[in-house]
Amino acid sequence: MPRYKLLLEYHGGNFAGWQVQPRERTVQGELQRRLGWLLGEEISVSGAGRTDAGVHALGQAAHFDSAPIVSPIEFLERLNSALPRDISALKLEEVPADFHARYSAKRKTYHYRIALAPSPFIAGLAWQIHGGTDWDAIKQATTLLEGSHNFAGFCLAESRKEDCTCHVFRAGWARDERMARFEITANRFLHRMVRLIVGTLVDIGRGRWQPEQVFRILDSGDVRLAGQAAVPEGLYLVSVEYA
Amino acid sequence: MPRYKLLLEYHGGNFAGWQVQPRERTVQGELQRRLGWLLGEEISVSGAGRTDAGVHALGQAAHFDSAPIVSPIEFLERLNSALPRDISALKLEEVPADFHARYSAKRKTYHYRIALAPSPFIAGLAWQIHGGTDWDAIKQATTLLEGSHNFAGFCLAESRKEDCTCHVFRAGWARDERMARFEITANRFLHRMVRLIVGTLVDIGRGRWQPEQVFRILDSGDVRLAGQAAVPEGLYLVSVEYA
Repeated sequence: MPRYKLLLEYHGGNFAGWQVQPRERTVQGELQRRLGWLLGEEISVSGAGRTDAGVHALGQAAHFDSAPIVSPIEFLERLNSALPRDISALKLEEVPADFHARYSAKRKTYHYRIALAPSPFIAGLAWQIHGGTDWDAIKQATTLLEGSHNFAGFCLAESRKEDCTCHVFRAGWARDERMARFEITANRFLHRMVRLIVGTLVDIGRGRWQPEQVFRILDSGDVRLAGQAAVPEGLYLVSVEYA
Repeated sequence: MPRYKLLLEYHGGNFAGWQVQPRERTVQGELQRRLGWLLGEEISVSGAGRTDAGVHALGQAAHFDSAPIVSPIEFLERLNSALPRDISALKLEEVPADFHARYSAKRKTYHYRIALAPSPFIAGLAWQIHGGTDWDAIKQATTLLEGSHNFAGFCLAESRKEDCTCHVFRAGWARDERMARFEITANRFLHRMVRLIVGTLVDIGRGRWQPEQVFRILDSGDVRLAGQAAVPEGLYLVSVEYA
């Protein structure tokens, strides 16, 4: 049975997250139901990242096995017609049988959008913060995240795994007067990691802590030293790289 | 009584347009009500462009007269707290008494966004078109719009004025795989002009007409030769220039 890789975009606002759950509307659940209906067999979809409720994706990757799909381009159009408006399938391609959307991933990139001014166009798409922010402090703190560290202190306590080491290839900010975007690329991410990092960095920008607080959180592995997780609607899974 | 200029952004989706109307939610109506409440006097707001229902603004300009506002920056914050989420006030400044948001305007720029692929993030923010489009034909037709012409053929018949001459400084497209944006700057715009132009250009791109159809519409002044007006949710009033 051939394996297919699917590239996906979705608006997370009306989903209880990626992962299928009984009686909840989930991205994985919608995909499996519509793919199963189109292909006439039960389809199991595996995603690269299990995004939480409210989190968006511009480039989520997933894979599934099915009977051969004769024309992937044509099938992609049929799939998009069958999918609800808040999910789009961007690309479909056959991949080797040992490809796994999650375990084969080498790097993932997330963005987190913060609105610095009110705007009618950001509802559900960014976190709006108010008041002055020390961006120099935030940038100093951000550089401390790069490299290999134990990120247990930036992980939801109840989801913690044995090995919490992540390698952050890049963490940085793009910013203009009205919008700031946190960009982070790593080999893997722990549960709630980006939102806990962003919440902590914004607290540092507000003067609650010095930038060195990041050291303290990484060294201790204690999530109680981190800030509150930033709201989900600012977070975007942007891309998953496999090579 | 000093005169103030207000720079505004709004999402047009839940408004019956700019202009105040009995029993309808309008941008002008909301502004007048909230400004009047904050300033303790009846306020009359004049806008640079009377956007239709569903049309958005990234940089609408307006003016109003009131008793002196001591701190415009502080007042702007109070105004934004009082305004509904789909209107933002970006800037407030005192202007000379002879400034008029509409009659002093030298140039306005509108953008029209067309989605070329489905996306969960465009609902209410762009017009999604399907199928192949001849962009060379669209670009040829677009260049015919530049300069001074009688645009009566791109104006809603029942709103037509005596003089329909407009000078188009620039008309062009920005485009990638997924989105096309029509950009037009002119000294003035007639009622429904941009949407009728975009509807006509897309029809040309679909092969309904040759690019020369634009000549025919301009020469005849007959809106029955033009395409259907493109849907309002793709249209953005981007900026109004006064010098």
